[in-house]
Amino acid sequence: MSQSNTADVATYMQQVGKQARTASRTLAAANTGDKNSALIAIHDVLVDNKQDILSANKIDMDNGQKNDLEAALLDRLELNEDRFEGMLQGLKDVAALPDPIGEVTDMTYRPSGIHLGKMRVPLGVVGMIYESRPNVTLEAASLALKSGNAIILRGGSEAFESNQAIAKCIHQGLKKAGLSEHSVQVLQTTDRAAVGELITMTEYVDVIVPRGGKGLIARISNDAKVPVIKHLDGNCHTFIDSDADSKIAIDVSVNAKTHRYGTCNTMETLLLDDTIADELLPKIAEAIVQADDAMQLRLDDKAQALLKDNAKLEGHLSSATDEDWDTEYLAPILAIKIVAGIDEAIEHINTHGSHHTDVIITDNYTKSQRFIREVDSASVMINASSRFADGFEYGLGAEIGISTDKIHARGPVGLEGLTSQKWIVYGHGETRA
Amino acid sequence: MSQSNTADVATYMQQVGKQARTASRTLAAANTGDKNSALIAIHDVLVDNKQDILSANKIDMDNGQKNDLEAALLDRLELNEDRFEGMLQGLKDVAALPDPIGEVTDMTYRPSGIHLGKMRVPLGVVGMIYESRPNVTLEAASLALKSGNAIILRGGSEAFESNQAIAKCIHQGLKKAGLSEHSVQVLQTTDRAAVGELITMTEYVDVIVPRGGKGLIARISNDAKVPVIKHLDGNCHTFIDSDADSKIAIDVSVNAKTHRYGTCNTMETLLLDDTIADELLPKIAEAIVQADDAMQLRLDDKAQALLKDNAKLEGHLSSATDEDWDTEYLAPILAIKIVAGIDEAIEHINTHGSHHTDVIITDNYTKSQRFIREVDSASVMINASSRFADGFEYGLGAEIGISTDKIHARGPVGLEGLTSQKWIVYGHGETRA
Repeated sequence: MSQSNTADVATYMQQVGKQARTASRTLAAANTGDKNSALIAIHDVLVDNKQDILSANKIDMDNGQKNDLEAALLDRLELNEDRFEGMLQGLKDVAALPDPIGEVTDMTYRPSGIHLGKMRVPLGVVGMIYESRPNVTLEAASLALKSGNAIILRGGSEAFESNQAIAKCIHQGLKKAGLSEHSVQVLQTTDRAAVGELITMTEYVDVIVPRGGKGLIARISNDAKVPVIKHLDGNCHTFIDSDADSKIAIDVSVNAKTHRYGTCNTMETLLLDDTIADELLPKIAEAIVQADDAMQLRLDDKAQALLKDNAKLEGHLSSATDEDWDTEYLAPILAIKIVAGIDEAIEHINTHGSHHTDVIITDNYTKSQRFIREVDSASVMINASSRFADGFEYGLGAEIGISTDKIHARGPVGLEGLTSQKWIVYGHGETRA
Repeated sequence: MSQSNTADVATYMQQVGKQARTASRTLAAANTGDKNSALIAIHDVLVDNKQDILSANKIDMDNGQKNDLEAALLDRLELNEDRFEGMLQGLKDVAALPDPIGEVTDMTYRPSGIHLGKMRVPLGVVGMIYESRPNVTLEAASLALKSGNAIILRGGSEAFESNQAIAKCIHQGLKKAGLSEHSVQVLQTTDRAAVGELITMTEYVDVIVPRGGKGLIARISNDAKVPVIKHLDGNCHTFIDSDADSKIAIDVSVNAKTHRYGTCNTMETLLLDDTIADELLPKIAEAIVQADDAMQLRLDDKAQALLKDNAKLEGHLSSATDEDWDTEYLAPILAIKIVAGIDEAIEHINTHGSHHTDVIITDNYTKSQRFIREVDSASVMINASSRFADGFEYGLGAEIGISTDKIHARGPVGLEGLTSQKWIVYGHGETRA
C-alpha cells in the first residue's frame, strides 16, 4: 500500500482497527492448544522461508548503509543466523509458557446467593510501536497471541522489508492453525500519521506498548488517547545504611553499577550513611573503579572530601552538580552522595529517583522494613543488586516491558500485563431485593 | 482564594499538587490505627460542627433556588438530617473496613536466591471531580484516607460553601490525629481552569476519578494526561436462551428492568432465542408491563409480530430503530430483539453493548460457559439479575465507582482500585551473574 495523504492513512487505519477488533473476539475464545499450534505453525513457516526473510533483511541493511544509518542502529536491524535461531527458539519458549487466560479466582458465595469470582481475559487489541528491530516483530506477535490479544505492529521504517517478510510467515502460520490472519497485522505503511491514528483509535485499540527512546515514548504517551504501558527513566539508587554488611555493600554496589550500563535497572546514584562513609566509601569507590577503568565518579562535597587524596581514584573524580541527582547515565558514570541517615536517603530517592528500582544495604530490621514500605518505586530491594529487576529474573517467563507507571502494571510486565480480569456471576435465578 | 486569571489558577494548582504529593508520602507510611483514628476524629468534629455545616448548606441551597437550579440538582445538593447521619455512619463504616495497604502476596524464592513478592501500596494522589453533592466530599475523602492516598477534591460549584465547611472539619480531624491537613484538599476556587490543571498535573496526581454525566466524563477523559478511572455507558443485556427456565427468565427480566431505572446496571435490551420467543416473550412482556404501567417496549420486527395483537400490551409497543440497540435509556423503556441463537446474541452484545454487565438465562452447560467466556464485559452473569453488578453486592465494602475501562480496574471498584502493587525483594547479598 502506498499512502498519498492523511485521509488515506486514516481510512486504512480504521480498516486495520476494525479487522483487529473482529480477530480479537475469535482469539479471546481460542483455546490454549489452538494458540500453541499457531505459534508452532509460525515457527515451521519461518524455517521454510528463512532465505526470503534474510534476503528482505539484506535489502533493509543495504538501504540503511546507503542512508548512513548509525552503526548501533544497523546492528539492531540485522538478522544474522544467531538472531534467526533466537527468533525460532522464542516461539517455542512462548508456546511452552502457561496460558494466562481463563484463570478463575476468588469464587465466593455472596449473601444474595450469587457465586461471584473473577476470570482473567485478554485486553483485546494491543498496538505496539517500536524501533527497527525485526526480531521484536515476532516476539511481540507471539506474546499477543499467547495472551489471546490481536496486535497491530508498527516497527521502524528502516526494517520495513524484513517486517513484511516476517508478517507473511506469521499469516501463513495463523492460516494453517485456523486463526484469523488479522490476529497479527504489521502496518503496510511507513507514514508517520499512522502512529497518530493508532494511539487515538480508542474504539479499536485497548492498550499501546511503545518501545524506544525516552523522547519517543514521552511523545506517544502525551498524544495517546488509548492507555499506554510505558517505561521512561531508570534512575536507580543503592543506599548503604550505617548497619550495612561491608562485603555485601561492596559486592552489590559493584554489580549494580558495572554489570551492564545500558540497562534501566543499573545503579546511577550511590547514597551512603555519613557514619560509615569514611570507612566504606573508599573501599566501594576503589572496587568500582577497579571493575572498570573508564568509570567516572561524580561526588557531593562530603564524598569529595573523603576521596580527593586517594591515589587509586586519581583521574576518576569530579564534583556532582544538582543535575546529576536526576540523571540516568546509561554509562560508566556514578553519582555519589553522603546522607544523614535513612530519612534523607528515602527523601532523596522519592524526590530525585524515577520510581524504578531502589535498594537498601542493611542488617537492621527496622530500617529494612521502613525502606521497603516508604520507598515509592516499582521494585524495592534489601541486600540485592538492582540488576535483578527484570522479567526473566522475576520468573515472568516473557517480558512485555518494564512499566514505570503505577496504574495497571508496575515494574517488569509479563503476559499478565496484556490481560484484565472480568467479574463472573453464577446465579440460580437470584433477583435484587 | 479568588482567582483573577489562568496564571493564578495554574500557580495555585501547582501548590495544591506539591502539598498533596508531600502529604501522600506521610500517608503511605501511616499505620492502620492512625488512619482509623483520623476517620473517627473527623466524625467527632463533624458532630460538634453540625450546625455550621447545615448553615453553609443553607447558603448553597438559597443560592441554588435563586439561580433556578433544577429540582433534581437541588435534591442532591441538600444536606438534611438523614444525609448528615449517613455521612457520619459512612465514616464509621470506612474505619471498620480492612486496610488494603501492606498486604504482601506471592513471596517466592527465585533460583538466584532472592525472595520475591508483591506489596500493596497506595497510588499516591487521587484527583476527584464530581457534582454538587456535599456528602460525596466526605465519602471520597474517607476512602482516600483509608487507602493511604492524598486526595484533591473538586466538587460542583453550587456546593461550594457546604464543601468548604466540610473541609474545615476534615482538616481539624486530620490535625487531631497527627496527619497532614494536605492529605485532603478541597479546592478553594470554582474556576474551571482548575480542572484543566488537575487532570494534566502528571507530576503530582496519579489518578483521576470523575463522577457525573457521561458528557463531562468523556470530556475529562479526552483532555486528561493523568490516568482516569471512568464510567461511561451502562447498556446492559439479558439473553433468554432456548434452554432457559421460564420462571427464572421472567423473574430476572422483571428485576433487571424495573428494580430501578437510573442505575447503570439496569437492563436496557432483552434478547430472546427465536425458538422460545413465541412462548416466552408474551409472558415476559406482560410481567414487565404489569410491574410498571409506564413501560414502553421497543420491538424488532419479529417481536412486533409476536406481540402486536396482545391486548394486555396495548399502548406499550413501538418499533425499534437502529439507534435503540445502542441506547442507555435510564427510563422505563426496554428494547427487545429476537436472535437466531447464542452466536447472534454474543455478537449483538459485543457490538452494541457498553461492556458493562450482560446476562444469559439458560440451563445449558455449554452455552453458559461460552457466554461467560466470550462476552467481553466487566460483569458477565448466568441466571442472575444485572442489578447485582454493584460494589456492595460484590462485597467490596465501599465503592469508588464502576469502571468501564479494561486497564487497571474493571467493573465495581473498591478500595483496591486506589492501590497498586510494587515488587519487593528480600536479598542476602545476591548479585547478578
